[in-house]
Amino acid sequence: MRGSFEAIAHLLFVTFVIMPQTPKNIAVIGSGLVGALLAIYLRKAGHQVTVFDRRPDIRKINFSGRSINLAMSTRGWKTLQGVGLEEKVKQIAIPLYARALHVNDKPLYFQKYGKESQAIWSISRGILNRKMIDFAESEGTEFRFDEKVWDVSLPEAKIYTGETEKGEWKEYQFDLIFGCDGAFSRVRHRMQRRSRFDYSQDFIDVGYKELTIPPNADGSHKLDKNSFHIWPRGKFMLIAMPNINGSFTCTLFLPFEGEVSFERIKNKQDAKNFFEKYFPNVGKEIENLTTDFFNNPTSALVTMKCYPWTYWDKVALVGDSAHAVVPFYGQGMNAGFEDIFVLNELMEQHGDDWETIFKQYQVLRKPNADAIAELSYRNFVEMSSKTADPKFLLQKKIEKHFAAKHPDKWVPVYSRVTFSDAPYAEALAIGDEQEALMAKIMDIPNIETLWDSPEIEKKMLSLLDEFPIGNRK
Amino acid sequence: MRGSFEAIAHLLFVTFVIMPQTPKNIAVIGSGLVGALLAIYLRKAGHQVTVFDRRPDIRKINFSGRSINLAMSTRGWKTLQGVGLEEKVKQIAIPLYARALHVNDKPLYFQKYGKESQAIWSISRGILNRKMIDFAESEGTEFRFDEKVWDVSLPEAKIYTGETEKGEWKEYQFDLIFGCDGAFSRVRHRMQRRSRFDYSQDFIDVGYKELTIPPNADGSHKLDKNSFHIWPRGKFMLIAMPNINGSFTCTLFLPFEGEVSFERIKNKQDAKNFFEKYFPNVGKEIENLTTDFFNNPTSALVTMKCYPWTYWDKVALVGDSAHAVVPFYGQGMNAGFEDIFVLNELMEQHGDDWETIFKQYQVLRKPNADAIAELSYRNFVEMSSKTADPKFLLQKKIEKHFAAKHPDKWVPVYSRVTFSDAPYAEALAIGDEQEALMAKIMDIPNIETLWDSPEIEKKMLSLLDEFPIGNRK
Repeated sequence: MRGSFEAIAHLLFVTFVIMPQTPKNIAVIGSGLVGALLAIYLRKAGHQVTVFDRRPDIRKINFSGRSINLAMSTRGWKTLQGVGLEEKVKQIAIPLYARALHVNDKPLYFQKYGKESQAIWSISRGILNRKMIDFAESEGTEFRFDEKVWDVSLPEAKIYTGETEKGEWKEYQFDLIFGCDGAFSRVRHRMQRRSRFDYSQDFIDVGYKELTIPPNADGSHKLDKNSFHIWPRGKFMLIAMPNINGSFTCTLFLPFEGEVSFERIKNKQDAKNFFEKYFPNVGKEIENLTTDFFNNPTSALVTMKCYPWTYWDKVALVGDSAHAVVPFYGQGMNAGFEDIFVLNELMEQHGDDWETIFKQYQVLRKPNADAIAELSYRNFVEMSSKTADPKFLLQKKIEKHFAAKHPDKWVPVYSRVTFSDAPYAEALAIGDEQEALMAKIMDIPNIETLWDSPEIEKKMLSLLDEFPIGNRK
Repeated sequence: MRGSFEAIAHLLFVTFVIMPQTPKNIAVIGSGLVGALLAIYLRKAGHQVTVFDRRPDIRKINFSGRSINLAMSTRGWKTLQGVGLEEKVKQIAIPLYARALHVNDKPLYFQKYGKESQAIWSISRGILNRKMIDFAESEGTEFRFDEKVWDVSLPEAKIYTGETEKGEWKEYQFDLIFGCDGAFSRVRHRMQRRSRFDYSQDFIDVGYKELTIPPNADGSHKLDKNSFHIWPRGKFMLIAMPNINGSFTCTLFLPFEGEVSFERIKNKQDAKNFFEKYFPNVGKEIENLTTDFFNNPTSALVTMKCYPWTYWDKVALVGDSAHAVVPFYGQGMNAGFEDIFVLNELMEQHGDDWETIFKQYQVLRKPNADAIAELSYRNFVEMSSKTADPKFLLQKKIEKHFAAKHPDKWVPVYSRVTFSDAPYAEALAIGDEQEALMAKIMDIPNIETLWDSPEIEKKMLSLLDEFPIGNRK
């Protein structure tokens, strides 16, 4: 069916014509990953682009010590490919084919992410950001670092920068403004004060801290470098992702308050005891980890949602400024890059009609941003409270067993999110259907013993026949 | 059981001792109803109180034309009574004992709110606000009108006022600050920019406009003055509440966009057609209504939630600044007044321990504020989409029928919210239990014909025996 539909589409020439755009003078606020990549896309479309950032040029300073390594997956790569950067970025990335689970008193256990060649790619945020700014600059983007935008006039597309909020301000007039200034966006701040602007910020009770495991003396990695390392500990966990210099960037996720929490770790001895007790197999690194613990800040994690994302044909929010998610699905940057991909498609379709571009952009992206926010939050709940639940673990085992036998009938949500560019909202909806089906399976008496029986397999197949999953596609 | 518990409590002297408070120098931001009443409570507790408001003295200007009349109910009266103001405020209020439903082509239909004497009280917001400021002033509160607070230093309890945001600011030092500055609170704005501050603002797609039905020539009311008048029209509605001068303050709730909406009413003729078509029985007033329509602004409706509500022992949010709700339960002001009642109880219990007062205040009030937000939003959904659903109407009829026969077993949520001071959260939870029970009743085959049969009554009684509703009390 699908093949014949495509054939008809080609016969009818239902491919769109690329509409040219009149060059505009565009401001991008924020020189992070999304701001820099958007600048590249806008330059390629022929626009004049100035990127403002309140911070200094990241190429000239040390990184902040508060970043979680990135996991680039299909959506991110697709967007980089659109401007020919995929191969260049792969040079600073390391493919991770599996999760390596470090459970105390058990051997290291590897879980493959997907099929043979499927991987997520570990990249240092700082290194990638420097590269992206280099790329954007070589495309002719002007960068204005150390220049803080204090206010924006939305209807006029003017921005105001200066040393201090109450001091002298400099006014710039642009044709369009893109707010790529992150979860605490100043551009959105201005939109937020208008009537009928929906907004929410929800912090979780778990914070995080960046830590480092340095390379071996010979420069090699201390742990398997092609795995995403996890030390799951119920309400908290440590993760580690490799860097190309042989080190690992670790992130400790830990409640702010409570029995085992950041507030209880007050000095080096507390930190040492904490690592020795809960992470004995990183024992040799403890000295380094405890030093990092007090050098690096503890950061909070927020889900931010808002709507609308655009103002007339003048201003649009892209990336975290429009939709910040908690990092437990590794999709924050991928979702931001996908925004750019969609924006670019709309630019090609609608030429100078920026009002339509912006309207369709927010209508197309909002449900997907909400879906990845939900999926990311659920992964947090799953990791923090369900990993110890035998019923939950049994369900995952049944799903895996079934998916291995019937890969065409059961694609896990993780794969739909990570190794596909189908909409996040679809992955979420299909995942909910899978959950509903599994609830019926888990209700079967003696499922604990029957789980890998032909009877259960048959039952799942018949439930799938009755309610084909994902048939809305 | 309850009687004997109380007897024991008295024997054990489990009444708390009122702790005296050291007089503090307190700023209240906002001279609205909550700000003025809080000032009165604080003055009675011996504190020095300065109220700031960016607006001029409401006693010296005309009202804004954007207010919905207030419906004072049990929680509001209880708080006024605490400072001896109940009787004084009743002089400017009109009791409403019933809803008067104006359905086209049907006779006017009255629904009693509760038992014989139970009423909600209609009060003009402007008139009440003027009175409350008079009361607060006579208690020795200092008012500083036309003085806008631009910023607050939370840890130091300093506030900064001035003509413009970028101009010269005046600094004031206080011991405590209360933010009573409404849904778009400047005090909260400062708290909002801290990490781990949860915040959401959600606008509904329906806006509102204030309209007036003037008195008869002899000063009498044109409609029954002891009723809350409603013209329900599915996706929109008109309401009218009496004023003591013989007029009615009407509020038109109407979608911003769509088939019948504010955006479609562009001129006087459109407005005239709209009122004639949908509200023929207010026909004589159309001239006046259409004039108001273009004189008065269209306002938006928001649910605002946040947490925490306090900062150390320095700053607390009270009323709409902490929890703004949509007006469909008539509880916005009542909830704000109840905040003050609870704060005052805590002040009496904990004396100078403001950190404990503020901590307990937010812990006690937050679940109730969330509950009334949810109940208010559900009433909006109910009014806008369910009033036309025969199944929903049948359910309401069964509940009413049953409650009349068994008033001890079935107290409607409306009564729990309006004519009780039991926690909002309890009303919401019990309402959900009632809904679950009714879902079972509505699933009974032929419920349409059986609804008032002894069989259904018996079934409801047995379900109530099985799952006693509200037994958590």
